[in-house]
Amino acid sequence: MKNKYYMPTRVIIGDDCITKNSELFLALGKKALLVTGAQSAKRNGSEKDVKTALEAVDIPYLVFDKVMSNPTIACVYEGAAFAKENGVDFIIAIGGGSPMDAGKAIALLAAQDIEEGNLFSGNYGNKVLPMAFVPTTAGTGSEVTQYSILTNDKAQTKTSIASDLLFPTVTFLDAKYTEHLGLSTTINTAIDALSHAVEGMLSVKASSVSNALAVASIRMIMNCVPNMLQALQSGSERVFNLKQREQLLQASLMAGMVIAQTGTTAVHAMGYSLTYFKHIDHGRANGLLLGEYLKLVEKVEPDLAGRILAAMNFSEAEQFQVLLSQLLGEKEEISSAEIEQYSKQASQTKNIANSVVKPTEEDIKTMLTLSFAK
Amino acid sequence: MKNKYYMPTRVIIGDDCITKNSELFLALGKKALLVTGAQSAKRNGSEKDVKTALEAVDIPYLVFDKVMSNPTIACVYEGAAFAKENGVDFIIAIGGGSPMDAGKAIALLAAQDIEEGNLFSGNYGNKVLPMAFVPTTAGTGSEVTQYSILTNDKAQTKTSIASDLLFPTVTFLDAKYTEHLGLSTTINTAIDALSHAVEGMLSVKASSVSNALAVASIRMIMNCVPNMLQALQSGSERVFNLKQREQLLQASLMAGMVIAQTGTTAVHAMGYSLTYFKHIDHGRANGLLLGEYLKLVEKVEPDLAGRILAAMNFSEAEQFQVLLSQLLGEKEEISSAEIEQYSKQASQTKNIANSVVKPTEEDIKTMLTLSFAK
Repeated sequence: MKNKYYMPTRVIIGDDCITKNSELFLALGKKALLVTGAQSAKRNGSEKDVKTALEAVDIPYLVFDKVMSNPTIACVYEGAAFAKENGVDFIIAIGGGSPMDAGKAIALLAAQDIEEGNLFSGNYGNKVLPMAFVPTTAGTGSEVTQYSILTNDKAQTKTSIASDLLFPTVTFLDAKYTEHLGLSTTINTAIDALSHAVEGMLSVKASSVSNALAVASIRMIMNCVPNMLQALQSGSERVFNLKQREQLLQASLMAGMVIAQTGTTAVHAMGYSLTYFKHIDHGRANGLLLGEYLKLVEKVEPDLAGRILAAMNFSEAEQFQVLLSQLLGEKEEISSAEIEQYSKQASQTKNIANSVVKPTEEDIKTMLTLSFAK
Repeated sequence: MKNKYYMPTRVIIGDDCITKNSELFLALGKKALLVTGAQSAKRNGSEKDVKTALEAVDIPYLVFDKVMSNPTIACVYEGAAFAKENGVDFIIAIGGGSPMDAGKAIALLAAQDIEEGNLFSGNYGNKVLPMAFVPTTAGTGSEVTQYSILTNDKAQTKTSIASDLLFPTVTFLDAKYTEHLGLSTTINTAIDALSHAVEGMLSVKASSVSNALAVASIRMIMNCVPNMLQALQSGSERVFNLKQREQLLQASLMAGMVIAQTGTTAVHAMGYSLTYFKHIDHGRANGLLLGEYLKLVEKVEPDLAGRILAAMNFSEAEQFQVLLSQLLGEKEEISSAEIEQYSKQASQTKNIANSVVKPTEEDIKTMLTLSFAK
C-alpha cells in the first residue's frame, strides 16, 4: 500500500453558481485577468456571467482572449506579460482545456520569472496567482488538476507542466455552458473524460480513491452513450437535455480528480503525436487508441481490464472497441512512416512508465496500425 | 444540480509513510505540539515514528497526552493554553477520533482567542495552526474532515465545530498502527466508517463524488465483515492481516471524505445521546441505530435504500439489520424515559434536517425502541 491523495480545489456546482457565489472572487484578489478563447465563452454566456459576478463585487478585470486550441508556449508568455503589465493579481480561465491549461501557465508565469528552457522542469519557486476556473466543455478535467499541457514545438509534442501550484483555487461547474456544444465536440470531450477514468485505473498510481471515482465516472459517461449514438444516427444534436449535460460535466470532474492522482498512461502518450502532427482533436485521438490499448491490457492483466469493462457493462474489450468505432466514425489516414515516428516518440514518454501494462515500441506500432485499420 | 466538493488535506498512505516523509513537517512550522491520548499512540508505535521524523528534520516538540475519549471543552482549552504558553506553531494529532477532534480544536484555539460561549458559532477569524494527523483507528475519518466533535456538557450532547479551517494540512495513513486494535474496537470503528458512508448517501448534500466514494467505502468494509464474524465466533482476534487493516483504513478515509461533503444524518443525531448519557461507544451507537433507520428509508425512498443495499450485496434492509445485530452482540438496556428524552433531543438537531428522509420525533422513538428490542 503506497499512495497519495491531494486535490485542494474548491468545486462549486450548480445552475448560476458563478453569479450566486460572486463573493468568492473577493478572496482571490483585487484585479482579474479573464483568460479565454476568441469565441465560445462569449457565445455560451459564461464570460458574461463571470463579468456580472465581478461587477457585483466591484472587482475590475481585463480580458485576454487569444488562447487557441492546443495553446502554444508563446501564447502563455504573451498572456503572462499582459497580466504583469496590467498588475492583475488573479486569473479566471473560461473555456475548454485550452484556456484552462493556458490560464494555469499564465498564473505561474505572471507570478515568477521562469525562462522558457526551464518551463517544464518543475524547478522554480512557489508563487502563483490564485485561479478561478469555469469549464465550458465536459472532458478535460483541467479544472481540478495540477497539469498545464502546452504545445511544445521544440519537442514536437504536447508537454505538461505538472505542479501542485497549478491546482485552481476554485472551480465553477454550470452545465448550461455546455448545452450548445456540437455533437462531435460533445463526443470527443466525453471520450477524453472516459479515457482519463480508464487510464487512471490502468496507472501504477491507481488507489482506492481514484478507482472509486473512475468507476463512477465511467458509469456516468456510458449512461450517456445511447444518446450519442442516437444523435449520430438521427443527425439531430438535440438529444442531450440539461440533466445529461450535468452528468457529463460531473463525470469529467471525477475523471479529472482521478488523473490528478494517477496521471495518464500509454493512451495519452500515443495520442499526443496524433494531435501535434495530424491535428486530430485530443479526445478523439485518445478514443482512436483506447480500444486497442485495453485489448492489450486484457491479454496481460485480464482482471484489471475486467474491472474496467465491468463498469461499462461489457465482458470483453472488443465490445468497447466496436462502440468507440461507432462513436468516432471514419478514421484518418496514417502512413507507416508516421507510425514509425510516433511509436518511437511515445515509447520514450513518462506516461508509458506510468502504465501498469507498459507497451514496447513494437506494441505501440501494432496498436497504432490496428487503431487506424479500416 | 447543486453541490460542492472541497477536501484540501494532503493524504499520504503507506508503510512508514511518516518517517519517509519527514520533510513535510518543515512546511508546517518550527515547533510542534503532539496531541494524543495517554496510551495507545505509545503502544502502537505511531508516537515514536512521529518523534523520529521530527528529530530527523530538527523540529523540537512537546507532548500533550491528556486527551480522553469523547474529549471535553475543558480539555481542548487546556491543550490550547499549553500550546500558547510554549510557543508551538503547529499541531500533530495522533490517535483515534478523540485526539484528532481535540487536535483540531486546539489548533483553532491556540491561534485565536475564542470564548467558550462562541466556540460552536463559527463566528471567528480565519487563523488556525497547521495540522498533521495520524489516525490509529479505522473509523472516524476525522483526518480528512472539517469537524471537531466535542462533549458539550451544557447542551448535554456531542457538538461539532464545523469550519474549513479545521481540515488538516496533511494526514499520514499507515495501517500498521491499527494492527493491534482489539476486536470490539475494530468492529465499532468499522461500523462508524460504514455509518459515515451510508449516511453520506442519505444526506440532502449527497453528490456524484460523495456517492462514488461512499459506494467504494461500503464495499471495502463489507469485504472485511466475514473476518469480523469469524473472529467473533472463534474468539480469536488474529484473523485480520495487514492487507485487511489497510482496506479498513482506506474505507474509513473515503467515508471521511464523504461526510466532509455531506455531513451526517439522523443516525448520528440519535447516536450522540447514547454516547453522552449511556457511554456507548460512538461507532457502536451508530451501528445500533443504522439498521432501523435504513428500514425507514427503505419504506419512504426505496430506490435510495436500494442503491445502498446493492453496495452491500443485500436486497433488503432487514438483512443488514441482522448482520449488525450479529456484529454488535448483546444490546444495552434502555428505559422509556430515556427514549423519550433522547428522541426529543435528536429531533431538534441539524443532522435531521440534513437527511433526505427526515424522521419525526415519533419515528425516532420507534427507531430507538426497536433498535434496543431483544
